[in-house]
Amino acid sequence: MFRLDHHPSGRHFLQIPGPTNVPERILRAIGRPTIDHRGPEFGELGRAVLAGLRPVFRTEAPVVIYPSSGTGAWEAALVNTLSPGDRVLMAETGHFAALWCRLAGRLGLEVEQIGGDWRHGVDAAQVGERLQADAQRRIKAVCMVHNETSTGVVSDIAAVRAAIDRSGHPALLMVDAISSLGAIDYRHDEWGVDVTVAGAQKGLMLPPGLSFNAVGPRALAAAETARLPRSYWDWREMLASNRNGYFPYTPATSLLYGLHEALEMLAEEGLPRVYARHRRHAAATRAAVQTWGLETVCQEPQGHSPALTGVLMPDRRGADALRKIILERYDMSLGQGLGRLADQAFRIGHLGDFNDLTLCGTLAGVEMGLAAAGVPHRPGGVQAAMTLLAGEAAATADE
Amino acid sequence: MFRLDHHPSGRHFLQIPGPTNVPERILRAIGRPTIDHRGPEFGELGRAVLAGLRPVFRTEAPVVIYPSSGTGAWEAALVNTLSPGDRVLMAETGHFAALWCRLAGRLGLEVEQIGGDWRHGVDAAQVGERLQADAQRRIKAVCMVHNETSTGVVSDIAAVRAAIDRSGHPALLMVDAISSLGAIDYRHDEWGVDVTVAGAQKGLMLPPGLSFNAVGPRALAAAETARLPRSYWDWREMLASNRNGYFPYTPATSLLYGLHEALEMLAEEGLPRVYARHRRHAAATRAAVQTWGLETVCQEPQGHSPALTGVLMPDRRGADALRKIILERYDMSLGQGLGRLADQAFRIGHLGDFNDLTLCGTLAGVEMGLAAAGVPHRPGGVQAAMTLLAGEAAATADE
Amino acid sequence: MFRLDHHPSGRHFLQIPGPTNVPERILRAIGRPTIDHRGPEFGELGRAVLAGLRPVFRTEAPVVIYPSSGTGAWEAALVNTLSPGDRVLMAETGHFAALWCRLAGRLGLEVEQIGGDWRHGVDAAQVGERLQADAQRRIKAVCMVHNETSTGVVSDIAAVRAAIDRSGHPALLMVDAISSLGAIDYRHDEWGVDVTVAGAQKGLMLPPGLSFNAVGPRALAAAETARLPRSYWDWREMLASNRNGYFPYTPATSLLYGLHEALEMLAEEGLPRVYARHRRHAAATRAAVQTWGLETVCQEPQGHSPALTGVLMPDRRGADALRKIILERYDMSLGQGLGRLADQAFRIGHLGDFNDLTLCGTLAGVEMGLAAAGVPHRPGGVQAAMTLLAGEAAATADE
Amino acid sequence: MFRLDHHPSGRHFLQIPGPTNVPERILRAIGRPTIDHRGPEFGELGRAVLAGLRPVFRTEAPVVIYPSSGTGAWEAALVNTLSPGDRVLMAETGHFAALWCRLAGRLGLEVEQIGGDWRHGVDAAQVGERLQADAQRRIKAVCMVHNETSTGVVSDIAAVRAAIDRSGHPALLMVDAISSLGAIDYRHDEWGVDVTVAGAQKGLMLPPGLSFNAVGPRALAAAETARLPRSYWDWREMLASNRNGYFPYTPATSLLYGLHEALEMLAEEGLPRVYARHRRHAAATRAAVQTWGLETVCQEPQGHSPALTGVLMPDRRGADALRKIILERYDMSLGQGLGRLADQAFRIGHLGDFNDLTLCGTLAGVEMGLAAAGVPHRPGGVQAAMTLLAGEAAATADE
Repeated sequence: MFRLDHHPSGRHFLQIPGPTNVPERILRAIGRPTIDHRGPEFGELGRAVLAGLRPVFRTEAPVVIYPSSGTGAWEAALVNTLSPGDRVLMAETGHFAALWCRLAGRLGLEVEQIGGDWRHGVDAAQVGERLQADAQRRIKAVCMVHNETSTGVVSDIAAVRAAIDRSGHPALLMVDAISSLGAIDYRHDEWGVDVTVAGAQKGLMLPPGLSFNAVGPRALAAAETARLPRSYWDWREMLASNRNGYFPYTPATSLLYGLHEALEMLAEEGLPRVYARHRRHAAATRAAVQTWGLETVCQEPQGHSPALTGVLMPDRRGADALRKIILERYDMSLGQGLGRLADQAFRIGHLGDFNDLTLCGTLAGVEMGLAAAGVPHRPGGVQAAMTLLAGEAAATADE
Repeated sequence: MFRLDHHPSGRHFLQIPGPTNVPERILRAIGRPTIDHRGPEFGELGRAVLAGLRPVFRTEAPVVIYPSSGTGAWEAALVNTLSPGDRVLMAETGHFAALWCRLAGRLGLEVEQIGGDWRHGVDAAQVGERLQADAQRRIKAVCMVHNETSTGVVSDIAAVRAAIDRSGHPALLMVDAISSLGAIDYRHDEWGVDVTVAGAQKGLMLPPGLSFNAVGPRALAAAETARLPRSYWDWREMLASNRNGYFPYTPATSLLYGLHEALEMLAEEGLPRVYARHRRHAAATRAAVQTWGLETVCQEPQGHSPALTGVLMPDRRGADALRKIILERYDMSLGQGLGRLADQAFRIGHLGDFNDLTLCGTLAGVEMGLAAAGVPHRPGGVQAAMTLLAGEAAATADE
Repeated sequence: MFRLDHHPSGRHFLQIPGPTNVPERILRAIGRPTIDHRGPEFGELGRAVLAGLRPVFRTEAPVVIYPSSGTGAWEAALVNTLSPGDRVLMAETGHFAALWCRLAGRLGLEVEQIGGDWRHGVDAAQVGERLQADAQRRIKAVCMVHNETSTGVVSDIAAVRAAIDRSGHPALLMVDAISSLGAIDYRHDEWGVDVTVAGAQKGLMLPPGLSFNAVGPRALAAAETARLPRSYWDWREMLASNRNGYFPYTPATSLLYGLHEALEMLAEEGLPRVYARHRRHAAATRAAVQTWGLETVCQEPQGHSPALTGVLMPDRRGADALRKIILERYDMSLGQGLGRLADQAFRIGHLGDFNDLTLCGTLAGVEMGLAAAGVPHRPGGVQAAMTLLAGEAAATADE
Repeated sequence: MFRLDHHPSGRHFLQIPGPTNVPERILRAIGRPTIDHRGPEFGELGRAVLAGLRPVFRTEAPVVIYPSSGTGAWEAALVNTLSPGDRVLMAETGHFAALWCRLAGRLGLEVEQIGGDWRHGVDAAQVGERLQADAQRRIKAVCMVHNETSTGVVSDIAAVRAAIDRSGHPALLMVDAISSLGAIDYRHDEWGVDVTVAGAQKGLMLPPGLSFNAVGPRALAAAETARLPRSYWDWREMLASNRNGYFPYTPATSLLYGLHEALEMLAEEGLPRVYARHRRHAAATRAAVQTWGLETVCQEPQGHSPALTGVLMPDRRGADALRKIILERYDMSLGQGLGRLADQAFRIGHLGDFNDLTLCGTLAGVEMGLAAAGVPHRPGGVQAAMTLLAGEAAATADE
């Protein structure tokens, strides 16, 4: 077998928008020996993480933890609340939103899709119109992605909520916050979200393998009558076991150790500071992109993601060759263009366990890579980012 | 939050029949930093583990890896091959077999159950009779547990296969090898199993979070026409991505590191030696149980599990009090009696990363616990186990 | 190069009397990334460990930490306090005491040795006589080993102190507590010890690489006039730097992380409980040895070490063959007979991070090994230990 | 006690010139459980590291490993080869050279010092003159530092060797290669060095705690007659034990695990590539320094260190305030000015486990720090470094 350990000198820059760089502190937590998942010590761990997750979602509602990828949590949100043939209104704001649509279709739901150009967030007005047009209340759920990881565009969930409220439509609101949670301000209760879908490998800085459903009261009620077959994803047994800190089937203990540590780290830094840090790094990244003369995928001034920046190639091609050269020469992984943006765009992840100097290194890697790949651009991007960071640092220090 | 690290002196004895003691070597592998799951290094890792799993299942067929508990792999086996209302023949040989039956029911399958006393393996003759009686071929699959983790009884899969063959019935054969894989001789291809369901937290010595389906050609064919809704568990996209070592959604990279290490460890020791080691430790455990004057749950001489030993309490009560006193005084976790054996039995896990002296420590904990809890028994169990181990050690050394 | 990771199944039993089994918690602490040894974070660490060591030595005096083996701390104690040709009175209670004598000679000191049979502790009366006979006060220091690691005999330091006091002799008292510290009740201040020499790889449960000098006021005064050349071991610069938590040369940061964790663990358990645990395990070990019909090296009822038990072979030969067979068959390392006890004795370490079941496993390994090696003995040793432990456990639980 | 784990977001930049950033791979190796230092497995480890060190020193001579800081290896070189009152010729090229002089004096040697301005390497001609002037051959050893860690100046050892040879003087040549080893081309045998002093926490990327003496045949011969008292540092017992891979006293096993891993990593990358990487990073750093309009401490074009760059403050003050602001705002540790350069200079470490993007992040931290601290400078340093790196990367890729 190959050697896992063989690497070039220095630390790899994992600047895909998730999984993100895992802090050594979390890696060490994950390295603890497994314990009896039915014993008293596990109960303490279970109760601690189940309670500790709620403030990160800003909810009083229970949060369900699955040993699965985020994809599983998408499926869980749907199978717990809907019945075969139910109609769902989904906004295709990017590749992941599109995947969620496809998944819904596979489960036997009827998907009504709001198209998009993958460069803007959800159009709340359009959501409102569709719901108002649905006189027969056939739409059972509205599903959307908060931070579209494939583009770097954030949708305004509060605005969607307001549109739904104005329409008086009873559809559930389900939101994918996979790459928002722990990186971008998110408010399950305040925004009236019924199910939030999330994962731990982005802002929560864990290796992949845990996903979440925050489950509001209306979603819980819907689960009583929903008829899509379900067992692994079923909230009911989960919530019953969770009451004492346990799980109905064997949980991924080592990742729960990591989650416990991640929650402590977020609490130590404080969520407002965590969000401000991400906004600042995103602004510095955009300063670099603008200086290079490149375009962000996002075209909406209020929609730029604090978690990642999608960047278009000058002629909408060559992104994969650029990423390859950056990986080979500078040992940095960037996110690829996905779906209809394949080879047209690349993505710079700047979320999770990250700081100013690592961002500068990241942007230096992109800038040197652009040169190496012969991509037309103006130098000076790193310098522009440094200017912004230095100014912002000073500002923060003055507070 | 509570401190994860607070423990009594010395190493905890995790003698539940899974999750098992995780070797430090695997814990260290899991502690590696996460990499890009779409990059070239990941492809190498993916190809290595996908290839390395096959000999452990003794199959040429592909093995699918899920980021999920074993429970998820149960569900996957069913939703990939069956359609709503399909009939499955399941043998209720213990608690986990019963849970699988319940899961099948929840998914909308019609379960025909072969009952059992939880002290014997599957009655192959009875399986044959049921199939022969099914003139209309309504039974689409026969499902059974190879090593029933709740009792310590192994079923004879080869015999079941032979019975199916004699009946000429086309039903698929699905086998749960969750606590067999890597601990007990198991032969997917030779026994004509169509789907083997397994997990990594038992004989593969990993923390929980990965599960498997080994998928034979007839099962693959069935997947083409099966109509249970599925997405997360769908083999088709999985197998397509796996061809190059990748996964259709984010895999649990850190556990895959651990899996890679586990496969190396099994290859270094050699599977025949691994199985012999488990049989030897099981025999020593039974020698102790017999000396104590207690009864194993298993009543079938050929059915004793090499992976765990279920032990009945003298009056069929007090097992939980015994386990509690052993945990508090001797820092050892034993498996509880499950389902209809609740409080009537306890289970000693002796699988995974284990050796003679840890077994002696384990049995000493049980014997001292029996005394502390006032359970009627004869002392000398550890001594009996030592006698057996010493004899066997000599025998092995002479080979 | 060879693979460090290649090991047989299960956990190795490291039952030499040090280095001892390192708790996973300490291994994880040691795995933290190195920090700037001149930065503010290091200062916090330095101050924490320097302060935290004092209660373990039961002293108000400063404790010096060397990046070195215990052997270095022996040298440090002498070169800081003595001048070429100075006479030291040393009691040769075993191999390590003899090595310390030899070391003193190499440094140019004149060693006056009190012989011994390696089966008893220091004869305090004899120390008193020697000092009284030294009318010219040529003896500058009395050096002895508290817990002789080569034999398992503890000397009564308080009695020696009393003898010195009665003699009115001004010699310094230096004590090697290398295998006592953190395992056996030790009182630097109360016993009037001037220099205590210790290491971290025994009762402090660290990997080797740190050693200590606890330095009382009379020793500090002696350091002002001592003329043996010294630089690396010099207390003066060390103590000056230590005042703020720093070191005059680069410290072994990763081991200091481990030390910090070890001090927290000892504080959590509480030293009185730590000592009682060691006494109890030693008693159980002696019960086994007695049952086997073997003899402990120690012949003094009050002198049996709580940290290790030296065991004589029936005919005073074959210990190495026994240890070899135990290592090969049962993956356990025992301490060898050293010096004049080479091949005549073996040593069972039962100190550090240890518990009842690991002790039972340890003793089972010895008992099976005795059988395998054909050493005449009576079986039942493990049983006898279990009886003692069960009784003691009950007793402790009743308190 | 304080929490070791409390850190700001992202990874600390440890850019002092040692201890250097420890690769995770080495941290994991160090986290392995301790083994019996007298058992067969340890012998394998010992033989592997003792053999593996030789090519890094480029010597056929034995290399002695001490559980100690580099300071200990300085002492070892002297006490093994010299006698009280012996004269040594030492070149004071910087702070560490000065410390070595002081140490020699403390040990009772007579130090003849060649002064220096701390901005140039050793003047080989002057060494030759001093030796020629020493008609009575009172000088027993010539001691110098290869890469002066306090300034970033490399001395030409081959030239010194030639000067000694020309003088026909029999003095031993002892060289401190503490911050050279594994980072800068070093040739013990070819340069006719008698004792090379080194440590593992620089180019070997380990946490501190191991130091080395490479011992040539003339040094070995000198050890037979040298009369400085010695025990811990004595080569003779060490070399005798080392023959089989063992040590005369307990070695620092966990650091030896790390050393084993480090040697594998150096062998995988290949020493010529390791050295070229360091030279390239040093050149890029100097490009930045020059652009900033600052001056390197080193004034000798051929003497610039590949391992670190010492930088003078414009008015020779304020370096500590600059480092403080960089630590607080950008979480990077830089080396302080030492001795007569205190507060006048700072040092950028770019050795060990390092790569282009981490260097860019490092230089960005310095440049933003210069701005934040109000130090007069021109921006554009990072840009200049990137230009050099991009050019060099291309060049390397073309080879």
